[in-house]
Amino acid sequence: MQNYEKFCHSGQLLYFCKLKLTSMASVKCSIPKGTRDFLPTEMARRNYIFDTIRSVFRTFAFEPIETPSMENLSTLMGKYGEEGDKLLFKVLNSGDFMEGVDFNQDYHKVAPQICERGLRYDLTVPFARFVVQHRDQITFPFRRYQLQPVWRADRPQKGRYREFYQCDADMIGSTSLLNELELVQMIDMVFTKLGINVTVKINNRKVLAGIAEMIGAPERLIDITVAIDKLDKIGLDNVRAELRERGLSEDQIHALDPVFSLSGSANEKLTTLERMFADVEVGQKGVEELKTLFGYIGAATMNCEVELDLTLARGLNYYTGAIFEVKAKDVQIGSICGGGRYDNLTGIFGMPDVSGVGISFGADRIYDVLTELQAFPEGLERAARVMFINFGPAEQAACVGIVARLRAEGISALIYPDAAKMKKQMDYANRKAVPYVAFVGESEMQTGTVTLKNMSDGTQQTLSIDALIDTIK
Amino acid sequence: MQNYEKFCHSGQLLYFCKLKLTSMASVKCSIPKGTRDFLPTEMARRNYIFDTIRSVFRTFAFEPIETPSMENLSTLMGKYGEEGDKLLFKVLNSGDFMEGVDFNQDYHKVAPQICERGLRYDLTVPFARFVVQHRDQITFPFRRYQLQPVWRADRPQKGRYREFYQCDADMIGSTSLLNELELVQMIDMVFTKLGINVTVKINNRKVLAGIAEMIGAPERLIDITVAIDKLDKIGLDNVRAELRERGLSEDQIHALDPVFSLSGSANEKLTTLERMFADVEVGQKGVEELKTLFGYIGAATMNCEVELDLTLARGLNYYTGAIFEVKAKDVQIGSICGGGRYDNLTGIFGMPDVSGVGISFGADRIYDVLTELQAFPEGLERAARVMFINFGPAEQAACVGIVARLRAEGISALIYPDAAKMKKQMDYANRKAVPYVAFVGESEMQTGTVTLKNMSDGTQQTLSIDALIDTIK
Repeated sequence: MQNYEKFCHSGQLLYFCKLKLTSMASVKCSIPKGTRDFLPTEMARRNYIFDTIRSVFRTFAFEPIETPSMENLSTLMGKYGEEGDKLLFKVLNSGDFMEGVDFNQDYHKVAPQICERGLRYDLTVPFARFVVQHRDQITFPFRRYQLQPVWRADRPQKGRYREFYQCDADMIGSTSLLNELELVQMIDMVFTKLGINVTVKINNRKVLAGIAEMIGAPERLIDITVAIDKLDKIGLDNVRAELRERGLSEDQIHALDPVFSLSGSANEKLTTLERMFADVEVGQKGVEELKTLFGYIGAATMNCEVELDLTLARGLNYYTGAIFEVKAKDVQIGSICGGGRYDNLTGIFGMPDVSGVGISFGADRIYDVLTELQAFPEGLERAARVMFINFGPAEQAACVGIVARLRAEGISALIYPDAAKMKKQMDYANRKAVPYVAFVGESEMQTGTVTLKNMSDGTQQTLSIDALIDTIK
Repeated sequence: MQNYEKFCHSGQLLYFCKLKLTSMASVKCSIPKGTRDFLPTEMARRNYIFDTIRSVFRTFAFEPIETPSMENLSTLMGKYGEEGDKLLFKVLNSGDFMEGVDFNQDYHKVAPQICERGLRYDLTVPFARFVVQHRDQITFPFRRYQLQPVWRADRPQKGRYREFYQCDADMIGSTSLLNELELVQMIDMVFTKLGINVTVKINNRKVLAGIAEMIGAPERLIDITVAIDKLDKIGLDNVRAELRERGLSEDQIHALDPVFSLSGSANEKLTTLERMFADVEVGQKGVEELKTLFGYIGAATMNCEVELDLTLARGLNYYTGAIFEVKAKDVQIGSICGGGRYDNLTGIFGMPDVSGVGISFGADRIYDVLTELQAFPEGLERAARVMFINFGPAEQAACVGIVARLRAEGISALIYPDAAKMKKQMDYANRKAVPYVAFVGESEMQTGTVTLKNMSDGTQQTLSIDALIDTIK
């Protein structure tokens, strides 16, 4: 049982009174675990992030697409590993979903028989399906961006949701490393605009393959990179112990020493690697790609720090060339953006050898970073530039005309809907953080003016409508 | 089996070749019935509609909110009638959904036991749930807008989809008729901006209730309005026949004559109704509300036609005051926007007597109207303002610097990613409908200039970078 404000209506006036609610009502009013409502202030902040990312995507000539929230389950199943299949939200077939289904089976077997569709798990697999399905309507190389929610039946926990947005940009149908440069420039522009200092970490999957081959364990690529990936967290000795556990020989572990002791600039590291990869073709190719990319990056003007990080290993099963990851410098938080090149994304849908490279911005983590840095611009959440006080029918009519002119100029304006007490109207303006309040009383009506109060410094001036527009625009 | 273009990579160059696909691949690449992919051109047009609606909502000081795609099924069930319950998409519980469930029951009984959640069916019920759940965080009167997709398991057919967007604006917690005026002004501004001539039809549910009471059949309100609603389509005689079938007496049907024969301006109709409602309180209240609203509308400047339509009956179970419906004048299509006042929306969640009024724009139908009128602005779908031709490594490096400057100015620009043959690059520029193509060769590199080709008239000029920015911005 809790109290809340109830609105009782009496004519045009609005009163507040208190009322008890039965607990039944509060039970009804909840949302599924791991999902969120967004109130206007959160929306304004989220839209600021989305708008910034979208504007940068557009400046780089990426084109928007959208795919349905529901895909055929056959499109999604088997694309995210066994764990991923479990985390897919499945949509029950309409009508008599039970007809012809044997329910004396394991639930894993029953689920796909009663659910033909599932909710999008990421934007990448639907994009691959999209490219194959619409290949005749697309001009390649194709740069697409996509900002849409995805759903995962993950255990809800702090910062992990069952519905969240992904903001992806991919260029597909070109192997040029200029694409990789442009992704780094795009990352730089997004975080410069948002005011977040970041480090962009870059690696190349071919270099990791080269290292595995060099120590004579090409088939242990994943074991090696998973261990290397932990270097930051657990230290070199523990990484070595883990490699031992994973079955690498002492000779092989020893052969990795030069990789761990690499130091200096990206170019210095690459020169050392080049020597190490004298007989390892895939490693040479990786070094060559990184040299070209760091050459491009060196020639470009950028605000962010870009570093070669050989311990970066993300999404290995998936990526085949460059790998990117972005960390915020002033906040302890995981990666806020990542991506890489994949040489065969559409192969799963029968269209092989289409190379692509892309990145994904983590809007929720960026939101957390901006909150922690208190770096959201002021005034984002303001509902209106100006609110007109309502003194009664005649004054309201005058306000309607003035407000229509302001709105035609694109100025967000509001008239309080009732001639309520002044204190109540001013309280409302304060709660809504309106920067200006306008008064149109008898004298203003006679002279065709408005008295404008600046809510931040309390000053007041009487203005013509044109001067009003100039002042608050 | 079908042919398609395949991309084979050889160094930095890109070739096209033909390849046969197995039919298996094409089978995989489809989307669920009634859902849609949106390609860049469609996206640009849809965004134009959404952006226009959103900008008007903001100008009128509406604040954005979002609710989760999935709601608890208990929030949704029973809110849309029996038919609506059937059309809800239900989401299968994660994990062992079969545990403890008796599958020897009717599927209607099994479904809610294996599905706790359902997909949003409209934006109104989630908004009511939102208002009750967040009542302590909301300042009333509250103006919210919400642009999100909804899902309905309707039989797919032309113009009817299983996933589609709703664009809703509601003001809640105020009974002032100024709110109704503002909705009409908002409709006017949206369709003026979109260049669609519309008629806004207005009625009031209390007038309909008054008519039912006047002829002595207050309990037959729904039968009467359903029949009246068909007047346009089936004519007066058939409406009378239907009323007879629905069990109204000849006297009652005869008593409706004055309603059908009402004519003249809104004011003339209202004056006649006022006389008819001498003893019908609810009808008088409805006329009074309409008089006030049409008084406001008459005093405001509007482009659209606004008419009082007593045969307008939409959503009767739901609305309690004003009802709106918008028709495009130059296109034969159903309503493209509608709404009304409801006095007890949040009552279903235990918070009674909160009055609200709102409208919903039908983005899909507006899309169809703009397509039929060929009224989309030109150039919406352009991926970039300018594309730079790639002549090789040195020229590419020069272009990277220039393009970075353009992008910093907010200009959408592109470098072709490879030094492909000129014809291929120009073809690409043409397919992407880029308005300008830029050439940076040896002489331009020496002089720090760019040769710019205007793709619509074929003219070329050599410009400094500053002049380039001024020309294409």
